[in-house]
Amino acid sequence: MPNIRLGLDLYGGDNAPESTIQGAIFAIENYLPENAEIHLFGEAEGIGEKVAKYKNIRVIKAENQIDNNTKPIQVRRLPESSIYKGCLGLANKEIDAFISAGNTGALLAGGTFISGRLPGIKRPALALALPAKNNKIKILVDAGANAEVKPEFFYDFARIGIAYSKFMGTEDPKIAIMNIGTEEEKGSNLVKEASKILKENNLNYVGYREGRDIFNDDYDVALTDGFTGNMMLKTIEGTSYYIVDELKEIINRSSIFTKIGALMMKKALKGLKGKIDYRQYGGTFFLGVNGILVKAHGSSDPKAIANALNVAYKAVENKLIDNILI
Amino acid sequence: MPNIRLGLDLYGGDNAPESTIQGAIFAIENYLPENAEIHLFGEAEGIGEKVAKYKNIRVIKAENQIDNNTKPIQVRRLPESSIYKGCLGLANKEIDAFISAGNTGALLAGGTFISGRLPGIKRPALALALPAKNNKIKILVDAGANAEVKPEFFYDFARIGIAYSKFMGTEDPKIAIMNIGTEEEKGSNLVKEASKILKENNLNYVGYREGRDIFNDDYDVALTDGFTGNMMLKTIEGTSYYIVDELKEIINRSSIFTKIGALMMKKALKGLKGKIDYRQYGGTFFLGVNGILVKAHGSSDPKAIANALNVAYKAVENKLIDNILI
Repeated sequence: MPNIRLGLDLYGGDNAPESTIQGAIFAIENYLPENAEIHLFGEAEGIGEKVAKYKNIRVIKAENQIDNNTKPIQVRRLPESSIYKGCLGLANKEIDAFISAGNTGALLAGGTFISGRLPGIKRPALALALPAKNNKIKILVDAGANAEVKPEFFYDFARIGIAYSKFMGTEDPKIAIMNIGTEEEKGSNLVKEASKILKENNLNYVGYREGRDIFNDDYDVALTDGFTGNMMLKTIEGTSYYIVDELKEIINRSSIFTKIGALMMKKALKGLKGKIDYRQYGGTFFLGVNGILVKAHGSSDPKAIANALNVAYKAVENKLIDNILI
Repeated sequence: MPNIRLGLDLYGGDNAPESTIQGAIFAIENYLPENAEIHLFGEAEGIGEKVAKYKNIRVIKAENQIDNNTKPIQVRRLPESSIYKGCLGLANKEIDAFISAGNTGALLAGGTFISGRLPGIKRPALALALPAKNNKIKILVDAGANAEVKPEFFYDFARIGIAYSKFMGTEDPKIAIMNIGTEEEKGSNLVKEASKILKENNLNYVGYREGRDIFNDDYDVALTDGFTGNMMLKTIEGTSYYIVDELKEIINRSSIFTKIGALMMKKALKGLKGKIDYRQYGGTFFLGVNGILVKAHGSSDPKAIANALNVAYKAVENKLIDNILI
């Protein structure tokens, strides 16, 4: 089996470069098989020493030129930046995957304009795995890449979502369009047109679903424009945090019996927290570009970076991209 | 003080007409002062007998012609229906408020085309109160009335949201536009244009907020198009139910100690459920039309109907509508 080459943006994220270096080492030591190579894009003091003993980690020269204030449009003018070089590495097939915890907009621009789109894909999209009832997995596309969307983009989103869902183990994924009602005549012109297009193509399309159905297990892929998708995703996040905070608050104000009860339930509450944290359910892929592009969360710690490397490795190994083109 | 006349759709909702009759009686007996009149729009066997002893409840003849399959456009052709008659009652000032737990689309169409819009309002919108951190209240506009929105509608949404927020006790409500990022250049063309309009007008506009900020207490009114607003609202609902279900599931599978813990925490968990149930935080108003129009939840029980009557009464008493026009 050929080596799988995973590019990693040394500078991406709030805790970089320390978290990315440690994440790469953690992944090599715990997750990745022999044929995995990590290409660290960037320079940091003493980095050579830190990774010297890992023959599967190499350092690629790149500069720290992109931060959270960098505008997407600027990336093309920063050819020495780690994101530019990583995305170029995908285009040139020097690496099979690129992972970054850095500026999302910059990474999406790099993927689209430097890595380049796959043939037949008009709009790459952010695809993300969420938990669903009965231990199922739901794929959400587009989770925020395209704020302005035309109906025909939904066909790309559908193929991206289906490929990701299959990668996560679903055999014949059912796809649905997120809408403000399930009846035929409900919703915006965008979703109505998109629905027609999905019906015309031979996809396993099951119709509209509402926001309250996002965790239901009767469909596998939730399709939406990037604006709505991002609003939904972050609303889930906001609601989860709010509920956990309120529960803590209620317990704090409660009687000693409630507090003892909470203590006895501690493990269950921790399990709940794990259950609703979508970050553990897979990676956030920017799919539809040349190569596997993974967006790790900005606040990633070494373990989260290692997880992202692991999921990228599996996506390459299982040919996630080939599935988009079928 | 003049009488406040509250119209109530006898047929609206899954449990009608029994729940609406009982709700009207419950409201008269428990919530409403002497000067409240309830006008029940509809006929049901024996209804006269049931309400005969309440001098503040009267029955207005209307027919049960609208169900969940009725299309909004059909309402105008059903002049004997309870929704048509109620909305016409608002236009003719025969009632001050109209409450229905029936077909939302039909009610919005009735409000817009039969009650009529307030002068200076282009687009009435659904406005709804959500909980926020530190026991604050957040108003969400538009929660689903307008799926297709132009930037200038946000000015109407802002005035509607401010009026509702003041009604809920906030002195100088801060308004924000929901967006997929907080930086100036982020988001769709719609929100960018809307943001300009709000800046130009002398409103207490504090900029963009993201989906994850929906429960934050640094702003009071969340503005969005009706498609996004409805998706957010129902995503909150879906997430809340999912979390509560998962927690139950985890407890069920847990040790006897966790179960005892859960038992001891029972009251706290019930408090949580009350806290996250937005239905208790006010009503869902369709604002911008002539008169107070309240949408009660389709599955309303008598107590929910009574709550809706109560909130409608207070909205009339506190001149919620006059505040929109300032």
